[in-house]
Amino acid sequence: VNKRPVGVFDSGMGGLTVLHECLVTMPHEDFLYLGDAARLPYGPRPLPEIRRYAFEIGAYLEAEGVKLILVACNAATSAALPGLQEALSVPVVGVITPEAHAAVQATRNRRIGLLATKATVEANRYGELVRTLDAGARLTPVVCAKLVPLIESDDPFGAATTEAVREYAEPVKHAGCDTVILGCTHYPLIRPIFQRVFGRDVTLVFSAEETAREVAETLARKGIENSPDREGGYRFLTTGDRETFRTLGQRFLQLPLGEVEQVTIAQLEAAAA
Amino acid sequence: VNKRPVGVFDSGMGGLTVLHECLVTMPHEDFLYLGDAARLPYGPRPLPEIRRYAFEIGAYLEAEGVKLILVACNAATSAALPGLQEALSVPVVGVITPEAHAAVQATRNRRIGLLATKATVEANRYGELVRTLDAGARLTPVVCAKLVPLIESDDPFGAATTEAVREYAEPVKHAGCDTVILGCTHYPLIRPIFQRVFGRDVTLVFSAEETAREVAETLARKGIENSPDREGGYRFLTTGDRETFRTLGQRFLQLPLGEVEQVTIAQLEAAAA
Repeated sequence: VNKRPVGVFDSGMGGLTVLHECLVTMPHEDFLYLGDAARLPYGPRPLPEIRRYAFEIGAYLEAEGVKLILVACNAATSAALPGLQEALSVPVVGVITPEAHAAVQATRNRRIGLLATKATVEANRYGELVRTLDAGARLTPVVCAKLVPLIESDDPFGAATTEAVREYAEPVKHAGCDTVILGCTHYPLIRPIFQRVFGRDVTLVFSAEETAREVAETLARKGIENSPDREGGYRFLTTGDRETFRTLGQRFLQLPLGEVEQVTIAQLEAAAA
Repeated sequence: VNKRPVGVFDSGMGGLTVLHECLVTMPHEDFLYLGDAARLPYGPRPLPEIRRYAFEIGAYLEAEGVKLILVACNAATSAALPGLQEALSVPVVGVITPEAHAAVQATRNRRIGLLATKATVEANRYGELVRTLDAGARLTPVVCAKLVPLIESDDPFGAATTEAVREYAEPVKHAGCDTVILGCTHYPLIRPIFQRVFGRDVTLVFSAEETAREVAETLARKGIENSPDREGGYRFLTTGDRETFRTLGQRFLQLPLGEVEQVTIAQLEAAAA
């Protein structure tokens, strides 16, 4: 039994869908979430800058006593996962690998679709991982520029979202993919729209679910789980505005969010110094 | 192949969580939903009155050409399911039976909890069905008076909801139930809160899921499914205010709701005459 919390971070809100899956599948664990809203989005920044931010946050969370760090952010995982794993002594789990693995396991015809943001598609980490895991599998990536703004809007379940999903699904259906990676942490919020547009014969792989499963397996195999009969807690830190985080965050978390604590960029920089 | 739509009705919004499950698990079927908002809630009304309303709606939907009628409402199922099945020529599926069946299948220690509204607990249909299916199973029912108002409020994922769920979970945990029926169509909207409070070792049975599965099995066994390669549509009728239905309804449906058509009580009465 290891009573320390699991650390989770993202530049913004998307990582809260990953935390959501962790909270419902590991209700006995404690979690500490850091949202680096003051510096979002990470996507368009130069890689060395993203690596520096991720390292600062990793060092801060490690100093706070977490037993595992979950990088719940595509951009930070793409840019910084290997560096974080080298620099930190606690295990570090990212998105991307779990979904790529699940998709390769699930596909029968070895044609895998990927819906994601521009930065994720261009970084091509999903493509590399799929090829590493099955050199005969083919990835069809689609840049879904409209989805994140629609999901963050006041009308995420409106007709515009369905139309956009239909448009992005078209090349994936045309390529005959039987498995689709939803490669952005925002996408679980509109899961029913994906399910209807792709229908029953396509397997959908969500990063939130697969990453939560990876965390649970890692804790179990390393023997660092908390006692199964307790109810865990969770805390939030943000570098940005606390009230904005709380209001939008609760929609992403779908659980009570409670108070949000402030952490400053200076504190993060100090942890990495 | 049978191209006719499936008819679904409820007094209010709750049935939309059942429709939601139907839409994501049967994206190739068409659905026609009738919300009898002008006469909600059904729960506190005398049984003969609920039976009359259900019969009017059933007759109206049958006249509209549906191939199956789904009673997505606990009160109407309790009061009127046998009568509807006798009176109508299309198959009629209700809530309650599917969940009771799933719970008896799932339990290992034969102790089943039930969280539901006062009317549902008092009608005791779940208790009768559980006993019919397994005379050795024991049901622990809990009246959850606060949940429906909290779920319809502006802050469904707030701390008050978690506190209420903890309070209602207490007698069920105390009785050692390994399976819990969430016996109200509103409850899927706060599924993550139930999952956290009950933890991993308790099986949760939601009426929306089990009822959608019952509809899918009935269509398949009767050979009246629509073609699997099409994308179905769905329409909404209400006896109440169309804009209110649309606004609150989209939160329950989690899919684009589109236009809502008006149907009058007089039209329903005429269908039953």
